[in-house]
Amino acid sequence: MISATAQYALRAVVYLAGGENGLVSRDEIAESTIVPREYLSKVLVELEAAGIVESRRGRGGGYRLSRPAEEITTLEVVLCVDEIPRITECPLGFSDHVKLCPMHKLLDDTSRLVEETLSATTIADLCPDSQRSRSCGFPKKRPGGQV
Amino acid sequence: MISATAQYALRAVVYLAGGENGLVSRDEIAESTIVPREYLSKVLVELEAAGIVESRRGRGGGYRLSRPAEEITTLEVVLCVDEIPRITECPLGFSDHVKLCPMHKLLDDTSRLVEETLSATTIADLCPDSQRSRSCGFPKKRPGGQV
Repeated sequence: MISATAQYALRAVVYLAGGENGLVSRDEIAESTIVPREYLSKVLVELEAAGIVESRRGRGGGYRLSRPAEEITTLEVVLCVDEIPRITECPLGFSDHVKLCPMHKLLDDTSRLVEETLSATTIADLCPDSQRSRSCGFPKKRPGGQV
Repeated sequence: MISATAQYALRAVVYLAGGENGLVSRDEIAESTIVPREYLSKVLVELEAAGIVESRRGRGGGYRLSRPAEEITTLEVVLCVDEIPRITECPLGFSDHVKLCPMHKLLDDTSRLVEETLSATTIADLCPDSQRSRSCGFPKKRPGGQV
């Protein structure tokens, strides 16, 4: 249901949420979350444009979350790189369909359910309580050997 | 959420459900449901293999449902041509993930919700009560001028 690109975006954001809000290099994110480097670059551009991450260039630069993980919904992250298609009018253009037919209502319901589920879950919800367990993308160890 | 191919399959099956279980030609289904003819042929092959429709070749031949519309779930139709990816183990292969991390649990939840919604809805549910309204794919008029 959720595209590979959106999953990459979620892993990157969850990884950044697992740190202490210091800057993290693109290479570290790519390696830890098993996301192809070039692909990750494109995803990070979208996440930055949406105000979810911020970056600093140059030596010692990198990425971090722009806002607390509690304030970022998974829906926001997914919508940066993907869409959840809602159906508001007859896609076939039948002029007598002033409201959705049962089939298109059903298809829209599936999108609405996914949207609601993602909207109700923040990035903080995806971070495990303990560093002993980890979410995919959530760092078990941070640079400097901290566990 | 639901692929174009799966939507084609649903429209074809809903169209057949709207008739009196007589044989309907591929061309009539394609024209009425606005599905490209060649694409529809591939979809019908899958629907027949899954035991949802049956066909007769030759003059006067065509397609009809193999079972009553009340006994065909929309999930069955969608799964003929598409998949709803469930996640049962860590897709990243982290060996310490003996159960899904919160992120992959969330992604699997979205698939489960879609699966449950489609499973709870039959093709009969997509057919309007009155021929005066129509579902996309549901025939307003049948051959012979019947309304």
